Amino acid sequence: MTPALQPADWIAVDWGTSNLRAWSIGPAGEVLDHAQSDDGMGKLAPADFERALVGLVRPWLGEGVTQAIACGMVGARQGWIEAAYAKVPCPASGGTLTKAPTTDARLDVRIIPGVCQNAPADVMRGEETQIAGYLAQNPDFDGILCLPGTHSKWVHVSAQEIVSFRTFMTGEMFALLSNQSVLRHSVGGDGWDDDAFAEALDSSLSRPEALAGRLFGLRADQLLHQQTPDTARARLSGLLIGAELAAAKPYWLGQPVVLIGATGLAQRYATALRAQGVVPVIADGAALTLAGLTAAHSSLKAKAT
Amino acid sequence: MTPALQPADWIAVDWGTSNLRAWSIGPAGEVLDHAQSDDGMGKLAPADFERALVGLVRPWLGEGVTQAIACGMVGARQGWIEAAYAKVPCPASGGTLTKAPTTDARLDVRIIPGVCQNAPADVMRGEETQIAGYLAQNPDFDGILCLPGTHSKWVHVSAQEIVSFRTFMTGEMFALLSNQSVLRHSVGGDGWDDDAFAEALDSSLSRPEALAGRLFGLRADQLLHQQTPDTARARLSGLLIGAELAAAKPYWLGQPVVLIGATGLAQRYATALRAQGVVPVIADGAALTLAGLTAAHSSLKAKAT
Repeated sequence: MTPALQPADWIAVDWGTSNLRAWSIGPAGEVLDHAQSDDGMGKLAPADFERALVGLVRPWLGEGVTQAIACGMVGARQGWIEAAYAKVPCPASGGTLTKAPTTDARLDVRIIPGVCQNAPADVMRGEETQIAGYLAQNPDFDGILCLPGTHSKWVHVSAQEIVSFRTFMTGEMFALLSNQSVLRHSVGGDGWDDDAFAEALDSSLSRPEALAGRLFGLRADQLLHQQTPDTARARLSGLLIGAELAAAKPYWLGQPVVLIGATGLAQRYATALRAQGVVPVIADGAALTLAGLTAAHSSLKAKAT
Repeated sequence: MTPALQPADWIAVDWGTSNLRAWSIGPAGEVLDHAQSDDGMGKLAPADFERALVGLVRPWLGEGVTQAIACGMVGARQGWIEAAYAKVPCPASGGTLTKAPTTDARLDVRIIPGVCQNAPADVMRGEETQIAGYLAQNPDFDGILCLPGTHSKWVHVSAQEIVSFRTFMTGEMFALLSNQSVLRHSVGGDGWDDDAFAEALDSSLSRPEALAGRLFGLRADQLLHQQTPDTARARLSGLLIGAELAAAKPYWLGQPVVLIGATGLAQRYATALRAQGVVPVIADGAALTLAGLTAAHSSLKAKAT
């Protein structure tokens, strides 16, 4: 890797609720350096953002003005400055970037807008950049992108545009139920049980109306039938992912599906989809964020010249 | 009310996870006094229970041995002493009481067992005493008792027995989602919107598979369409109670239903059931706990004589 003291040609920034990540990009698009901190949007007031960013990227700044392109919750109403949503149908990276107010003359910061949908009401911030990254690498893709996570997204993409999407709170629900509800006594650890996951998934998909009655059963099965935490944990995951797949069926049924995210969670979604006869492609999410930021930078440069 | 210094004939105790409530009962079954503390089971080690109880009821103790009858989580594995579950089908108050270990010779404490069900696995502790209280007052009741709360119970009762039951984490889920999830930004306050509740309820009942896709929409509708916190709160409640009713349909469809609990929550369940053509009777839960403890005490006395 090139020494970190070489100034950045531009800086890519992924700024979410919990973390700030930045890359120093060289003139040929190569990554010169990488840095991150826990200065997420969630704990910063608008006046704090510039200091947090400059503190992280100072070693990369040269003599002139360095361009930074940022995506994520940094552009929310409670962020640095609101980057108004683009509305579907729209290109994933087609929105107008919003210039963030700065006092340090060495930085010019532009924030990528999130994407919204009127009916049913939905929003995303950050995922649109991963989607743009995927489309930069696969310009002819027509189908469904699924981005599992705290708030999973199912996104219909066609002709380089986001056509429609839907958000599911599956990851947040799993965290709340397994850490903070009465089920926390029953689903501890990080073990797993493939059969229990498959059974629970099938149950939510084939009888979605029964889900509400199955959750407390995870506690009762432990008390009465010595169900292990591994089994309970896999069941809870299967029930919740199954409920998501049941609601998202119009997205994945008979469609080409790409799962974005190389984590264990994406593997669980892949297992779940395969059980429904869908064979998803898995793409690495972290690399796609950078690809999307790069696409936005290129497009900005093209407009400027 | 009789002066508090008259010794109790016996003492009724409702000991849950968060609270300890006790009543001093006179020779004719009248309530002589009432006391409560926040010494719930959740924060006591087994050795702490006796001290917590004696501290609360000391003014009521006379010269001889005073009988105390307790129900609730005090009889859980992590409670004072485990009162093994009775298994359905069983009388609501028919189980053998468990004697709690005491060092103070003035108290004889007996704990009412909870009730369990093998398949689907389920448990209750405390509700069986309210059910016994209802059956003491309505011995010929044949139908469904619904006990809304943190963990709602639907209970099929016939010929004085609990035939089957099912627990729903609806109240706990509502609390987690409205206080700790991303929805907390959208459902604050304690306002209400009848139409939004009705629409969300109907949506969960008619399309239970769509529920997972509607939760995040509560956030998005606030961001995009200025949905008020009152509306969002009523929608969240309607979605979750609707999911419970969808799963509990085999219980309430075409059955006489009694809702136990005089709270606003019971009123919401009543509204929800009426929208489905079921006209529930509402019974006061607090009074029923005391009636159930009284029934257990009478039955213990009858066995002793």
